[in-house]
Amino acid sequence: MRERLARVTLMRLAEPGDAVMGRLVASCGPEAAVEQVRRRVLDLEFVRWFASTRRGRPAEGTGEADARLDRILAAWAARLEAADPAGDLAAGERAGARLVVPGEPEWPTQLDDLLDSRPHALWLHGQANLRFACIRSVAIVGSRAATPYGAHVAAEFGAGLSERGHGVVSGGAYGVDGAAHRGALAGGTPTVAVLACGTDVSYPSAHHDLFEVVRARGLLVSESPMGVRPTRPRFLVRNRIIAALARGTVVIEAAVRSGALNTAGHAVALNRILAAVPGPVTSDTSTGCHRLIRQGAATCVTTPAEMAELVGAIGSDLAPEPRGPVLPRDRLAPEVRRVLEAVPARAGAGPAVIAVEAGVDLETVLSCLGGLAAAGYVEKTSRGWRLCPEKPSSG
Amino acid sequence: MRERLARVTLMRLAEPGDAVMGRLVASCGPEAAVEQVRRRVLDLEFVRWFASTRRGRPAEGTGEADARLDRILAAWAARLEAADPAGDLAAGERAGARLVVPGEPEWPTQLDDLLDSRPHALWLHGQANLRFACIRSVAIVGSRAATPYGAHVAAEFGAGLSERGHGVVSGGAYGVDGAAHRGALAGGTPTVAVLACGTDVSYPSAHHDLFEVVRARGLLVSESPMGVRPTRPRFLVRNRIIAALARGTVVIEAAVRSGALNTAGHAVALNRILAAVPGPVTSDTSTGCHRLIRQGAATCVTTPAEMAELVGAIGSDLAPEPRGPVLPRDRLAPEVRRVLEAVPARAGAGPAVIAVEAGVDLETVLSCLGGLAAAGYVEKTSRGWRLCPEKPSSG
Repeated sequence: MRERLARVTLMRLAEPGDAVMGRLVASCGPEAAVEQVRRRVLDLEFVRWFASTRRGRPAEGTGEADARLDRILAAWAARLEAADPAGDLAAGERAGARLVVPGEPEWPTQLDDLLDSRPHALWLHGQANLRFACIRSVAIVGSRAATPYGAHVAAEFGAGLSERGHGVVSGGAYGVDGAAHRGALAGGTPTVAVLACGTDVSYPSAHHDLFEVVRARGLLVSESPMGVRPTRPRFLVRNRIIAALARGTVVIEAAVRSGALNTAGHAVALNRILAAVPGPVTSDTSTGCHRLIRQGAATCVTTPAEMAELVGAIGSDLAPEPRGPVLPRDRLAPEVRRVLEAVPARAGAGPAVIAVEAGVDLETVLSCLGGLAAAGYVEKTSRGWRLCPEKPSSG
Repeated sequence: MRERLARVTLMRLAEPGDAVMGRLVASCGPEAAVEQVRRRVLDLEFVRWFASTRRGRPAEGTGEADARLDRILAAWAARLEAADPAGDLAAGERAGARLVVPGEPEWPTQLDDLLDSRPHALWLHGQANLRFACIRSVAIVGSRAATPYGAHVAAEFGAGLSERGHGVVSGGAYGVDGAAHRGALAGGTPTVAVLACGTDVSYPSAHHDLFEVVRARGLLVSESPMGVRPTRPRFLVRNRIIAALARGTVVIEAAVRSGALNTAGHAVALNRILAAVPGPVTSDTSTGCHRLIRQGAATCVTTPAEMAELVGAIGSDLAPEPRGPVLPRDRLAPEVRRVLEAVPARAGAGPAVIAVEAGVDLETVLSCLGGLAAAGYVEKTSRGWRLCPEKPSSG
């Protein structure tokens, strides 16, 4: 219980994805981490580690690093004073949500791949089991400002992957996120919406009803306490959870500046499978997808079956190759086809003329014409051989 | 002159792309090849070669191969009797076309890559020089039944490649072919239409006017004599010339069954560059393009500049990376941005509240707020700091 309380405190104390705090928790545990912030004294070993990493600041001296850590500690401490973990736990319970922390049965261990930026805990609200829902799952991400095309494809992928037994993971935004959840709800396997706000906050507010259905038949997930509103940086930080939960991520529509490309970057960094759906080259919302395909970062997928094949088990989940219709004409031998091509449509022609036109000898022509007549392709008239009018003569 | 006459005879005598005849011509020259067909006696060495290859018939014995060659020879001989090479030459001159044969200055030597299926000669009709027009050229191919999207993209590629100094090579069909030529004519470099019929035949007839413009400012090309109508197999055989003339081929729209995929196969077999333009996954006419991209056979290209980069010289012709707009907010340091995110839009907030919300220390908040106020992002009111209403607060 004390660990859960400490983790709820950490959700308030550090920004989501704060890897410095993540490192502190990894080194001494959540309770000691909170205690060190409360006493405003960090372990000497941790202070040395911080100075040694100089994250992105190679020219920084030890004194400057210490000063920077002091400022970080002051910010943590200020937030700790404002924190009310018991109140947060009670608010979550009142809202009907549940807290899961690392090590508990419902905790999805694939989040451990996030290392120091692993969430301290997650608030879940919904009927589905997070761990089971994500064992075999695909993240469907894309533009909030999806075109009707993007929304259609997202819904098709949501439904098609769900029907194949893949859980769907996405955010809670307009456009691709919403369409993916709606498709997944139609398909039957649980859909998981990872939010950048509290699970009790309907953002965007027009998704209030959608979130209600997801709670009933899937799961809302957040690393923020109840009541927390989303901010722009938190949307980006949230994306790491979406990428980490799923086996693979598919980008449906994404402009060159798009949060979906941020999720794609997390998927690559986490060694997850990345795919992108192409679209019209005239559409700005597909530019990001095409760039991922051109760079070789993402596999081009066009159907839910192809995505299922990518994330599925080797040897099963194979997508069918697209094939066109087989026309009766296709079954003819090449020589027979050449003779058929040489038979005129209206005015008839004799076998010798047809032989010259087709470039085959007379004997072959006579034999082919007999077979073609029996199959109803050609007919013999008083003016020679011609095509039967009712058979297709061009295709 | 005797060689030209022999090659004009060969254009009648064998089907275009007939590799058996191509081998005969390669082994003894065009005049001797015609003479052997006239005498109905083939060189023993050639007969032995034919029996040894057993093209696609590994179980065939020498006797059966000889019988098959006899039938081929009979078909050639029958066509030879019907041929009138002097008349064909005169008809071409009357139509305003010119004959080019291998070894002449205008002959594009890249056609030699076709080996035994190299055309015996080509009829050209138009102002452009075939060799020069194709030195730096791209083949634009795709569906006859192009969607408005495909026609638009084909015209954009035709114009964009032409403006970059690349000749455009295509067929003469409706859809992508026609749109590519129209685009190329707008761009300025010669456009080359390779036809499956004689250069004096307007097929399809609605392209009569387009072909007139191509004759005036580009080139019509055919391996068939004047007056010859196209047949279905000849369209496919013609595609090898399109693929061989150009440095690279781009498929704009192609269903799973499409002549454009046949051209793509020739491009791969000839070690030419192959690219495909993606489209909506909901459109059957883009299925072939997506399959080529998924198979790794074609590079995904979305703009004429990207195609020019593929076929262009190394180090020049680089396509720009697609980039989104840079917003003023992007230039802010991460810490400053976090403070800006924590400033409320309407009701003001004090620096301490903003510090807790942003997760940075008070001193940093005060310094950031000063800079943000100077840049016009935030303002200080009697109730604390808030965002300036006229600045964008979400993006």
